Amino acid sequence: MRHKKKRRGSRRPGVSPGSLIYVGEERLDPAGIDVIRYDPETISEHPGVTARAAAGLRAVSSVTWINVRGVHDASVMEELGQAFGLHPLLLEDVVHTDQRPKLEAYDDHLFLVTKMIRLSDSSQDIEAEQLSLVLGDGYVISFQETSGDVFDPVRHRVRNSRVRIRSLGADYLLYALVDAVVDHYFLVLDRLADRSERLEADVFAGPAGRSLEEIQRLKHDLIFLRRSVWPLREALSTLLREEASLVDGRNLVFFRDVYDHTIHVLDTVEALRDTTSGLLDIYLSAASNRLNEVMKLLTIIATIFIPLTFIAGVYGMNFEHMPELHWPWAYPAVLGGMALVALGMLAFFRRRGWL
Amino acid sequence: MRHKKKRRGSRRPGVSPGSLIYVGEERLDPAGIDVIRYDPETISEHPGVTARAAAGLRAVSSVTWINVRGVHDASVMEELGQAFGLHPLLLEDVVHTDQRPKLEAYDDHLFLVTKMIRLSDSSQDIEAEQLSLVLGDGYVISFQETSGDVFDPVRHRVRNSRVRIRSLGADYLLYALVDAVVDHYFLVLDRLADRSERLEADVFAGPAGRSLEEIQRLKHDLIFLRRSVWPLREALSTLLREEASLVDGRNLVFFRDVYDHTIHVLDTVEALRDTTSGLLDIYLSAASNRLNEVMKLLTIIATIFIPLTFIAGVYGMNFEHMPELHWPWAYPAVLGGMALVALGMLAFFRRRGWL
Amino acid sequence: MRHKKKRRGSRRPGVSPGSLIYVGEERLDPAGIDVIRYDPETISEHPGVTARAAAGLRAVSSVTWINVRGVHDASVMEELGQAFGLHPLLLEDVVHTDQRPKLEAYDDHLFLVTKMIRLSDSSQDIEAEQLSLVLGDGYVISFQETSGDVFDPVRHRVRNSRVRIRSLGADYLLYALVDAVVDHYFLVLDRLADRSERLEADVFAGPAGRSLEEIQRLKHDLIFLRRSVWPLREALSTLLREEASLVDGRNLVFFRDVYDHTIHVLDTVEALRDTTSGLLDIYLSAASNRLNEVMKLLTIIATIFIPLTFIAGVYGMNFEHMPELHWPWAYPAVLGGMALVALGMLAFFRRRGWL
Amino acid sequence: MRHKKKRRGSRRPGVSPGSLIYVGEERLDPAGIDVIRYDPETISEHPGVTARAAAGLRAVSSVTWINVRGVHDASVMEELGQAFGLHPLLLEDVVHTDQRPKLEAYDDHLFLVTKMIRLSDSSQDIEAEQLSLVLGDGYVISFQETSGDVFDPVRHRVRNSRVRIRSLGADYLLYALVDAVVDHYFLVLDRLADRSERLEADVFAGPAGRSLEEIQRLKHDLIFLRRSVWPLREALSTLLREEASLVDGRNLVFFRDVYDHTIHVLDTVEALRDTTSGLLDIYLSAASNRLNEVMKLLTIIATIFIPLTFIAGVYGMNFEHMPELHWPWAYPAVLGGMALVALGMLAFFRRRGWL
Amino acid sequence: MRHKKKRRGSRRPGVSPGSLIYVGEERLDPAGIDVIRYDPETISEHPGVTARAAAGLRAVSSVTWINVRGVHDASVMEELGQAFGLHPLLLEDVVHTDQRPKLEAYDDHLFLVTKMIRLSDSSQDIEAEQLSLVLGDGYVISFQETSGDVFDPVRHRVRNSRVRIRSLGADYLLYALVDAVVDHYFLVLDRLADRSERLEADVFAGPAGRSLEEIQRLKHDLIFLRRSVWPLREALSTLLREEASLVDGRNLVFFRDVYDHTIHVLDTVEALRDTTSGLLDIYLSAASNRLNEVMKLLTIIATIFIPLTFIAGVYGMNFEHMPELHWPWAYPAVLGGMALVALGMLAFFRRRGWL
Repeated sequence: MRHKKKRRGSRRPGVSPGSLIYVGEERLDPAGIDVIRYDPETISEHPGVTARAAAGLRAVSSVTWINVRGVHDASVMEELGQAFGLHPLLLEDVVHTDQRPKLEAYDDHLFLVTKMIRLSDSSQDIEAEQLSLVLGDGYVISFQETSGDVFDPVRHRVRNSRVRIRSLGADYLLYALVDAVVDHYFLVLDRLADRSERLEADVFAGPAGRSLEEIQRLKHDLIFLRRSVWPLREALSTLLREEASLVDGRNLVFFRDVYDHTIHVLDTVEALRDTTSGLLDIYLSAASNRLNEVMKLLTIIATIFIPLTFIAGVYGMNFEHMPELHWPWAYPAVLGGMALVALGMLAFFRRRGWL
Repeated sequence: MRHKKKRRGSRRPGVSPGSLIYVGEERLDPAGIDVIRYDPETISEHPGVTARAAAGLRAVSSVTWINVRGVHDASVMEELGQAFGLHPLLLEDVVHTDQRPKLEAYDDHLFLVTKMIRLSDSSQDIEAEQLSLVLGDGYVISFQETSGDVFDPVRHRVRNSRVRIRSLGADYLLYALVDAVVDHYFLVLDRLADRSERLEADVFAGPAGRSLEEIQRLKHDLIFLRRSVWPLREALSTLLREEASLVDGRNLVFFRDVYDHTIHVLDTVEALRDTTSGLLDIYLSAASNRLNEVMKLLTIIATIFIPLTFIAGVYGMNFEHMPELHWPWAYPAVLGGMALVALGMLAFFRRRGWL
Repeated sequence: MRHKKKRRGSRRPGVSPGSLIYVGEERLDPAGIDVIRYDPETISEHPGVTARAAAGLRAVSSVTWINVRGVHDASVMEELGQAFGLHPLLLEDVVHTDQRPKLEAYDDHLFLVTKMIRLSDSSQDIEAEQLSLVLGDGYVISFQETSGDVFDPVRHRVRNSRVRIRSLGADYLLYALVDAVVDHYFLVLDRLADRSERLEADVFAGPAGRSLEEIQRLKHDLIFLRRSVWPLREALSTLLREEASLVDGRNLVFFRDVYDHTIHVLDTVEALRDTTSGLLDIYLSAASNRLNEVMKLLTIIATIFIPLTFIAGVYGMNFEHMPELHWPWAYPAVLGGMALVALGMLAFFRRRGWL
Repeated sequence: MRHKKKRRGSRRPGVSPGSLIYVGEERLDPAGIDVIRYDPETISEHPGVTARAAAGLRAVSSVTWINVRGVHDASVMEELGQAFGLHPLLLEDVVHTDQRPKLEAYDDHLFLVTKMIRLSDSSQDIEAEQLSLVLGDGYVISFQETSGDVFDPVRHRVRNSRVRIRSLGADYLLYALVDAVVDHYFLVLDRLADRSERLEADVFAGPAGRSLEEIQRLKHDLIFLRRSVWPLREALSTLLREEASLVDGRNLVFFRDVYDHTIHVLDTVEALRDTTSGLLDIYLSAASNRLNEVMKLLTIIATIFIPLTFIAGVYGMNFEHMPELHWPWAYPAVLGGMALVALGMLAFFRRRGWL
Repeated sequence: MRHKKKRRGSRRPGVSPGSLIYVGEERLDPAGIDVIRYDPETISEHPGVTARAAAGLRAVSSVTWINVRGVHDASVMEELGQAFGLHPLLLEDVVHTDQRPKLEAYDDHLFLVTKMIRLSDSSQDIEAEQLSLVLGDGYVISFQETSGDVFDPVRHRVRNSRVRIRSLGADYLLYALVDAVVDHYFLVLDRLADRSERLEADVFAGPAGRSLEEIQRLKHDLIFLRRSVWPLREALSTLLREEASLVDGRNLVFFRDVYDHTIHVLDTVEALRDTTSGLLDIYLSAASNRLNEVMKLLTIIATIFIPLTFIAGVYGMNFEHMPELHWPWAYPAVLGGMALVALGMLAFFRRRGWL
């Protein structure tokens, strides 16, 4: 299995819905909560606080960004749920990290599930991580499965006081985080497009056994990417259409921008899938061309020599009364006849365009 | 036929609609009705009661769960129909267990048909059972074809007084039952995904005759799963959209959750179908690769030896006047010539990349 | 052409629309009109009446069912049109029996075109017949192309005073007739499903020449069935959505039921089409497997014997100076060498997994 | 290129929109305008009038049908435009005869573009001609590319005073013209269906080289037909939905009828496309069956004779010490052994089902 | 990679949205701004002005067309943004020239992104250039990546005082520019259609190795064209539906016209894609036909000569007691027998239809 995420069922049958048992890979690094609070003028960072402390840091005129590293610690999640009034099903979706991306509106917050995708450096395997985002009044909670560096660029921009992000509210922060995720899709897409082009060149150069597996693997990866982006597009479309009260009308233009990007990704994925499924046909065609070439050679050799061997066989017979055997010029004549037959054959093949 | 359920027509032509003739496998175990009545504080269980008694157990402030094991006894079904005021067509749909999943709103109850799917332990065959659910005011009737253990987890949760289910009404009970069914889909899906991965590995390792049948069988199973889940998704979507009065607004979030799960299942089924139909192409490619390999070997052997055999034939001719035959070094010279021809051929094949 | 109905254009170009020239197979049996009038208490049957008499039999509180056997008699059709106030285009659609199923609302009646499908007993060919139904206030007119027995079950139920049909109005009679038609689809579907399963078994057992034609024929039949049911589903959907005033709200539940049945049929048709188009791929795969097997055998025989024959050829040469020929143990040594070569080849093939 | 119409761009880049440069085949016959004016009682025909005179013939209580033969004369078109107040873009669409069929509503007239399709008698090629129709208050203008006979049946009906058409207004005339066009589609469809059936029979009888080209050609023709009918269906659907004020409500039923016919055409085209694309698969299967048969024969002959030839070769060797050569019964024994080998091979093949 | 535009991600992850870093090919020619201002009577041209000057040239009753050649100069773009009040995201979309075509409504201007497509003369490669258009009150800004000649025809028409364009406002100018772009699509489409027809003829004439690559390349180009036109169609559809206040109702008919053209392009692209994907199947069929032919020849030669060679081998054996060898007519008898065998084979092949 190449995709690090397993497509396992979200819950054991029989387990009560809303239970916070982490579903995903084993995580060893401890969970932690980092808070950044900023307004246009000031910024304060609070790494490694408790859920209760994080909730206390919210303030009226500033934006509070609560970043949760690791969602596998049930007690931390429960504390967060109580401190921010999150619905048990929302927490379950955060913890069961095999959700489809989706947008859900709760009474006083928006809940957005996204998939962060990167290609591992070594094996070119797709690695997916669920990033869940909660937008409340004046705060954003982001849940990462690991302490990854996805949000570092956003963090840098927040720290820079001259950048727009500092003055545009929590909804703009939500946008910036989603945008960071979608930007990674383009990177993955570029790598997949490269692989597709390389594969195409390979297949035209001559079908190797590996190609077949590479094509199937590329297909898998494109299906995986599509399944991550398609529902995100839907979620953003819903957000744009319903104009949630938590998103400022002036900031909708940014969400429209990231929505356009998801369409762009899907569009390219579709084009790549089209190309990739065409590759298999071309692979088969190329293989069948090879077979043709091999068969032609066999046929040429065999059809030239089989009659000649027959003639040699005839004069190898031991009959007593074979007058030709005693003619002085018989041997060169037969050799000459053989040469004529061979030349006739070659001419025939040339006329058919086989040589 | 692998699917235990036959796709037979729901009724003999000419039979009056609404007739309660059981359509399905022969059932020998007797039908029975078990009732559980609970409210946040108390719970009482009444196994093996009559339909009339079950109807009498309904009470204003508690939830009554009437579980019917076996739907093949027409008299029991008719009694139930009268006791709970169920429409004849509803009862017909319960008894004719080859319905598509669907949601139907009647005047004072909701009717939901679902398909319970499991894989038999021995043969990995899909077994389907129709579970029909009726939600009325303060009660849920569940119809099982056999006394299976699907609902055991729900039963356990109901018996545990500290769990949410005890305080959330009959609509939440309906949700819990549907959720139990959908959870089983994930189990089946996991097994199918495993089979798909194994098949893919098999096909790449080398196409065996079995693979073809296995692929077709997996396809059948995926189509079957899809046909069970797709209409359920539709039914839940209708329920969410129309906000039936029997479902409390606060509980809609749970139905939205199970609706998300059905989408997740369908999504994965589609991805698996994509992969599986790709498998056949790969199988064909691999088979054609094999053929190529075989043909190459044949061609190499034949094209090397056919000319040599011809040369041997020439010197096996019995002409009187073949001067070469009398030269002392002719034999080794001819053998050497043959070796040269063979080496030339091998070099040619190596240049073509066939060796 | 297997389908008895030809797909001919509905009209010669240049013929005025509304002209009642019968388009279909030649019909020899005379057309006739049978009337049954019933209310919950009484029933009277009037076989073989005129159109005018049929119209006169309508009564306020009873249901009148006018069944027209044969639509090829233009004068009868015109008389009916006048007696019941039917639009010329409606009559044209009845007479041109190659309509797509459809529902049309006229001012005071509903017009429903359906296709009755059965498989001929002898040749398993699909036979289609157009059944047109007109629902007016208190009456139903049914048009059959031939005096078939499709409606016999409905007739039996009408004659039985204790059955629901007697008390539920003309719209329920319409439902019962449509339901009789749809029930036949299930029979046809069962036979097609059987054929599909048999074909699949055949193809896996070994591709015979017939299979290809059978697959194509099954495809044709499924397309035909789909084209008959799909528009009927649409028509029923329209009827349910627009809640025509001629259909009692209480009876809508029955039309919803028959609508569900059409969806069930379509669903199964789609699944069968999926399976059938997969069959062709499997047929090709199996054929290609056969080819592989044949080629392997040829290759094994040829690659074993071609070198041996070459060796024999060498020692069949007539050179004067071939010292081996005079060694006493040369003959058995060469035979032994040949055996070694053959065994080496066999070992090589076994290692490749070809034996 | 088989389709007489070229798919050329509608305009040279850089040409001002609205310019009336005819785009289509070279036309030599002069353009002309024929007018028929009728009411239920009277009819007058005015062949070969000018655009101005045609406009003058309009009258309040009668229907005026202006038929324009040939659209390649820019001056005539401009005059018409001025006389009837037609928008420059409308005239451009009439003159650029490679439009998609469409309906456009202008302030006081409806504009409908349709494609007349026929199969040329000699070569079975599809010939398309653009027929543009303008419905104004009390008049219809029809534009033909050539003086074809498409509208002759309508003309005959108009001349016959007893036919409905005389009393039903200009909108009914529009319907009659569109209906004449759609009726021709059925003729073309019948011919294509015949070709498809003949091709299918051919392919099953044995794949000839021509079949491949015929299949591709049929595909082209079906795509062409579909592209002509699909947008017409859309246009008629718009007309029905928006209930244009120029079309009398009572006449909508006729447009609904012709709309049904377009759906019928599309339906049949889709079924034919399904069948045709299946044909290629069957062609490939049949070709592969042939190959199998050929290979089997080759394998049988080769595998029988190659070992025998080897045996003969062995006893053709010239070793001095080959004791068998001197046994008196050796020769018949070897012949017998060869026969046994051959019979064994044949038995093997029979058991494999190859004979 | 044939498409000059790379499908690269629109932004490096981590870069703040709204940054004006040019994404596209390296551009060396300096950027420049040309302004044309016109009203029905007067026209003035101002080549090579600054952004500020361009903004100053706007006037109440005339149309100002600001054409920006080259978008790679960030300072020019920023100046333009300030002078015309353009949103940073709009400028980002202009500069990142890998946008999907789209329409965006801002408070006081419309923003339309289109793709200009041409085929390079030398290599027949598709070259794409992003043309962004901004429609404000009385002015249009057009952004070209290079100083191409796309807009020359429009420029000519503007300079000609007698043409409609001079009197129809800035929205008509926007239409004229979009129309110039769409007209180029028809040119490209014609060339692709020609390539498709030539390829089809090639493939039927006999499959060359090049064909496979040409087919794939045509597919790529069609996908590329489709991806450029489809979103433009969507954008124009939105413009028509929402009737933006900046577009005069009287000019909507022109946008409807260009919208029709995009549908026409897409329609033809789809038909070409259908044909092209059919080509691969035909290529495979033709290749497989070839293989059949080759195999038939091989089989005929081999099956005729292999038995003959065997007979010759038999009489080449060196048994002492082979009475036939001494019969005087044995040799001609054997030759005659061989001839009979060969003729019998030929007759067999003729009966099978192989000769």
